[in-house]
Amino acid sequence: MTEFIEVPRGLDRVIVADTVIGDVRGEEGFYHYRQYSAIELIEKCSFEEVWYLMFNGKLPNAAELADFTKRVAPYRQPSPALAELLPKLAHAKPLDGMRTALSFACAERGMKPVYDIDEDSRLDDVLFASALVPTILTSLYRYSQGQEAIAPHDDLGYAANYLYMLTGEKPTEAHARAIEAYLMSTIDHGFNASTFTGRVIASTGADVGACLTGAIGALSGPLHGGAPSRALDALDAIGTRDNIDTWVRGELEAGRRMMGFGHNVYKTDDPRSVMLRGVATDLGGDLVEFAKQVEKRVVEILAEVKPGRSLYTNVEFYAGVVMELCGVPRDMFTPTFASSRVVGWSANVLEQARDSKIIRPRARYTGTPAPQPVERPE
Amino acid sequence: MTEFIEVPRGLDRVIVADTVIGDVRGEEGFYHYRQYSAIELIEKCSFEEVWYLMFNGKLPNAAELADFTKRVAPYRQPSPALAELLPKLAHAKPLDGMRTALSFACAERGMKPVYDIDEDSRLDDVLFASALVPTILTSLYRYSQGQEAIAPHDDLGYAANYLYMLTGEKPTEAHARAIEAYLMSTIDHGFNASTFTGRVIASTGADVGACLTGAIGALSGPLHGGAPSRALDALDAIGTRDNIDTWVRGELEAGRRMMGFGHNVYKTDDPRSVMLRGVATDLGGDLVEFAKQVEKRVVEILAEVKPGRSLYTNVEFYAGVVMELCGVPRDMFTPTFASSRVVGWSANVLEQARDSKIIRPRARYTGTPAPQPVERPE
Repeated sequence: MTEFIEVPRGLDRVIVADTVIGDVRGEEGFYHYRQYSAIELIEKCSFEEVWYLMFNGKLPNAAELADFTKRVAPYRQPSPALAELLPKLAHAKPLDGMRTALSFACAERGMKPVYDIDEDSRLDDVLFASALVPTILTSLYRYSQGQEAIAPHDDLGYAANYLYMLTGEKPTEAHARAIEAYLMSTIDHGFNASTFTGRVIASTGADVGACLTGAIGALSGPLHGGAPSRALDALDAIGTRDNIDTWVRGELEAGRRMMGFGHNVYKTDDPRSVMLRGVATDLGGDLVEFAKQVEKRVVEILAEVKPGRSLYTNVEFYAGVVMELCGVPRDMFTPTFASSRVVGWSANVLEQARDSKIIRPRARYTGTPAPQPVERPE
Repeated sequence: MTEFIEVPRGLDRVIVADTVIGDVRGEEGFYHYRQYSAIELIEKCSFEEVWYLMFNGKLPNAAELADFTKRVAPYRQPSPALAELLPKLAHAKPLDGMRTALSFACAERGMKPVYDIDEDSRLDDVLFASALVPTILTSLYRYSQGQEAIAPHDDLGYAANYLYMLTGEKPTEAHARAIEAYLMSTIDHGFNASTFTGRVIASTGADVGACLTGAIGALSGPLHGGAPSRALDALDAIGTRDNIDTWVRGELEAGRRMMGFGHNVYKTDDPRSVMLRGVATDLGGDLVEFAKQVEKRVVEILAEVKPGRSLYTNVEFYAGVVMELCGVPRDMFTPTFASSRVVGWSANVLEQARDSKIIRPRARYTGTPAPQPVERPE
C-alpha cells in the first residue's frame, strides 16, 4: 500500500520548493529580492533594473539595461487580434479580462512547453507576457469607461508608461517615481497561492501562458488578492479627524477588521508600508496627513483593544494613498498590483522550469466505501 | 522562527485534501467515482448520469435526469461574443484555445468568487462550463480545418452530440456508445496536477472560470496530459504483424519507452484499458485485431526484457483505437480527454469550495544571504 504523508491543512508551513528568488523575514520586518533588500532596490533602482534582476539573478550594467529595454519595448504593443479582443472584455471583472487577454496573447504567440525550450526562449516568453500586461490592463480599464485605449509610449519607462496608458497624460516625474516605487514593492513577496499555482502548472512542463493564466486566477480569489482600495474606502468613511476614534471603536465593537492593518507574516512594521508612507509624504497633501493621523490612532486603539497582537499598517494602507495621489482609479488598484506581480510569477516559473519534477500531491478518499452496487434510485 | 515541514519533492504522497469524489486503487486495478466502480457505471449509465453523480454525489432518478438534461442544454450554445472569438483561435494549440475560450465565456458570464455564492450558484457555474466545453473544442477543431462550426444538436446526448459537432454527422449508435464509454472513463482519476491546480485556485475563493482555466493550463503540460495519439502512431510505425518483434525490440534497445504501456499507479491491468479493449473489440475491424496482437507481443517482450516491472497497456493504448474507430481525428485525442476531465475538475472545485482554507505552502530561500549592498555592475 502507498504510504501517505500527513501535513497541516492548506499545506501550511510545508516546503514545496527551494528558491533563490527572495524571501520574507517577518520577524525582522524585512523582505528581499534575490540577495538584495527590496526596499534598498526601490530606493536606488528603476523598475526595469529590478525586473532584469528578478529574471536574470543579477543587476544589469548600463549596456545590459539598454539591451533589456530595447528587447521588451516591442512586446508592449498589442497584436492586431489582441487589440480587437480587448474592447470585448470591457465589461468583465478586471482580473477575468486580464486572464482572458493574456491567455489569448500567449496562445496567439504559440508558446511552447517550458520543458521543450531553452532558457533564453523561456525568458523571451516571460518578457513578452510581463511587458504586455500593463497594456492589457490599462486598455481594459479605458474600454470599461467608454474611452479608447492608448498605445504605449516608447520614450517612457515601465512605470511612467503605465500611468500614461491609464490616463492619457504623461505623468509628472514625482508621480512616475511614486508609482514605480509601489510597483517595485509588490513584484514578489515570498510564496503565496498565486505564485504556487504558477509553479504547479510549470511543473507539468506547460507553457508560460498556461502558468501565468493560472496564477492570475488564483490572485482573483478574495482570500488572496486582497483589495487595496478597502483601506482608502475606510479613510473616506471616517471623513474627518474628529471622527477617527468614534469610527474605529465602532468598527472594532461590530467585530469588523481594520482594513490596511495587520499581516500574517509581519509582526512589526510592514517594510512596504513604511516605504510607501515615505513616498506618500513626499507627494504631500491633505490625504497623506489625514492617513497618518488615522494610522496613529488606529495603532494606538488596536494596542489598547487587542493588546499583544502587534497590529500595524500593512502594504494596502499607504499603497491606496499613493495610487490615489498618482491618479490611479480605485478599480485599478488590484490590477495594478497584478501587473507587477506578473514579474514575480514569471521569475518563479523560470525557476520551476529548471526543475523537472511534477508537483502532484494526493487526496485521501473519505467517502462511502467502494464499490457499492450501481442502482438507479426511484 | 517559523517551523518548516519537510516533505518529499513534488509533494509526492503528501495528502493535501480529503475527498469523497473517488479514488484509484492501483494494486487492485480498480478505480471508482463516488462510491461506485467507474467501470460498472460505464457499463450501466449514460454520460449525463455520471456527470450528475459527480456533481451531486448520487445517481439521478428519471425525473432528476430529465431536469438535469434540460438544465444543461442551453449551456451548450456559445454566446454571440464567444462564437465570434472562436475562429480567431483556430491557429492556437487546442488546449491554449480551449483555455482562452473558456476563460472568455466565464468572464462574460460574470462568475462570482466561489466563497461568495451558494452551492446551487456554484453548481450552475460548473454546469455552464462543462456543458460548453465540447462546443468550444469541436468548433476550434473545425475552424482549424477551414470548416464552419456546427451548432449543438438538442436531441443528442453529450457523447453523440460531441461526435456530431466534430464531424457534422449524427454518429451511429455504436460509435456514440463507444465514445461515451471513453469519455466516462476519463472524467476523474484520483488526484493529479490539473485537479490539484483547480483546487489550489478554488482555495483562494476565485470563481469557477479561474479554477478551470488553471486546470486546463496544467493539463497542457507534457508531463501531465500525455498524448493518447502516440500509441496509435506506434501502431502505424509497426505497420504489419511481421514487424512487431523487430520494431518493439528496436525501440527498447534505443532506450525509448513503449507508448501506451505502463502506469505509475496500476501495477496490473489498467481497468480503463481492459474496458476500452472490450469496446474496441465490439466495434471490430483490422485495427483492433492488430492492436491486440501488438499488445500481446509487447507485454511478452517487456516481461522478458524488463522482468518484474509488470508493464501492461494503459488507458492511452485502446483509447486511441476507440477514438480512431469513432472518427475522432488524432489532433482531437487530448482535447477529447480534456472535455470529460472538466467534469472531474468541476467536482473537485465544488468540493474545495466547501472548505475555506487557502492552500499556501512555503518555499525555502537557498540563495546568497541577504541583504547584500545594492551596487550596479560595471
